[in-house]
Amino acid sequence: MKAIEGYLPLLESTIKDLDVADEVLGGPMAYALAGGKRLRPGLVLLSADVCGGDWRQLGRAAAAVECVHAYSLIHDDLPAMDDDDLRHGKPTLHRAFDEATAILTGDGLLTLAFALLAEPLAAVPPELQLAAVREVAVGAGFGFGMVGGQALDLSGAKDAAGWLRVAAAKTGYPLGAAAAVGAFLAARADLAQALRSYGRELGIAFQIKDDLLDVQGSEADMGKRLNKDAGKRRPNIAAIAGVAAAEAALRDHSAQAVAALANSDLNREPLERLVVELVARTH
Amino acid sequence: MKAIEGYLPLLESTIKDLDVADEVLGGPMAYALAGGKRLRPGLVLLSADVCGGDWRQLGRAAAAVECVHAYSLIHDDLPAMDDDDLRHGKPTLHRAFDEATAILTGDGLLTLAFALLAEPLAAVPPELQLAAVREVAVGAGFGFGMVGGQALDLSGAKDAAGWLRVAAAKTGYPLGAAAAVGAFLAARADLAQALRSYGRELGIAFQIKDDLLDVQGSEADMGKRLNKDAGKRRPNIAAIAGVAAAEAALRDHSAQAVAALANSDLNREPLERLVVELVARTH
Repeated sequence: MKAIEGYLPLLESTIKDLDVADEVLGGPMAYALAGGKRLRPGLVLLSADVCGGDWRQLGRAAAAVECVHAYSLIHDDLPAMDDDDLRHGKPTLHRAFDEATAILTGDGLLTLAFALLAEPLAAVPPELQLAAVREVAVGAGFGFGMVGGQALDLSGAKDAAGWLRVAAAKTGYPLGAAAAVGAFLAARADLAQALRSYGRELGIAFQIKDDLLDVQGSEADMGKRLNKDAGKRRPNIAAIAGVAAAEAALRDHSAQAVAALANSDLNREPLERLVVELVARTH
Repeated sequence: MKAIEGYLPLLESTIKDLDVADEVLGGPMAYALAGGKRLRPGLVLLSADVCGGDWRQLGRAAAAVECVHAYSLIHDDLPAMDDDDLRHGKPTLHRAFDEATAILTGDGLLTLAFALLAEPLAAVPPELQLAAVREVAVGAGFGFGMVGGQALDLSGAKDAAGWLRVAAAKTGYPLGAAAAVGAFLAARADLAQALRSYGRELGIAFQIKDDLLDVQGSEADMGKRLNKDAGKRRPNIAAIAGVAAAEAALRDHSAQAVAALANSDLNREPLERLVVELVARTH
């Protein structure tokens, strides 16, 4: 059993080898997929591993989840949305290329994700692969999912309750989906609910920590503009509720993530370690 | 066995009942899904029907294909892309709402499509549902699929060969995918290749006919601006190659659509009738 970084070599080589044979969009796609923490696909593999699955066979399915994440960043950064110029310390896709290319590269990555998730996997019952497709689609979709969260975000929820709904939709649901997908692809559908809950709480905690770091951090640390949310649409929970309340919420959601696993028959140690690492991180 | 219009009542009621419980995007989604010929989902059901499948159980899977189509129209119409103001005789989504809403509604519809396609279907083996997911994802994706076609289109292919590549990617591949999905969901994977070829040729013929009507038609007939392609990026095959050559290509691709079915064990009559109707239409 590995710490989440242990899955990075497989993920990086799999993502590098994704080849879409698109003369116009191949370059932008690779640009969009370079960099990032790989938290979501890492969580797919970690979850599959703790469920006893053969994670080495699941690189492309995990990469699918990273494609969904990369698409969401491209579209969120667009001028009509958050209008961001920097991402991972380099120009956002619409700044490096153009807006049409950014929209299409995002669309293509989202579509590619489902092609990858639906590739035949010898060790996984096809009905559980279908469950993984549904999980990702619902986690990324309208309503309580990622698209619904971005719409709420743009419509300007400015209090702590609104912030929480947005964080749950934009970060909690996708991380919950990643963890549940790992259970499905390990043929342990019975563990999907516990891992989904774990992932959702982890995602909310992650976003609280991000906001705390944004308020406290520096440009060099974060690879994006200092205190980027100031004066922009998106509120910061540490600014809304205060740093002390945000730190309390961080502890609470971290504890909920661990508690979600309490009655599950799996190796909890690496999942608990991931929570501790995310809470302790300094960038 | 019905003409393609025979599937409209099921499609319209299914699409009307799609409920995404999204307070911000529910309205725009319904706006985007209202209207249109329903050619793609109709082809899913017709294809399933000629393959002997129970098409009455496949309304939501067919609606998925319409969601993909609706998303593609929304994103293609955006200011950064084709910058269109009218669609189906009413304002495009970014004109009726705003650009961020249009991007997100498109993203949500694409995501919803895969959630619908992955819903359990009692009569369909799950590995064939996974094949349907792949078919739609590849048909809508990078490279030879719909996203790749839009990228090529924007990069400005101005000759007949370039036009054909774009038409094959933007219309041929999605219609081929719709027809193949019908075969998979009728549990007749053996017929998917013939129906895919049929759909691709039908789609190219459809696009040629559209261009001929655009050159010859009027605003009242088409519900969009007269000769909308004039002065815009997208070339019109009747303008590039001449009306006579475009009409010859229309006959050729129509004949190829019919020929693709020649050796298949299915009821070809309604599929052939659809080709004849598309070629003969006046709007």
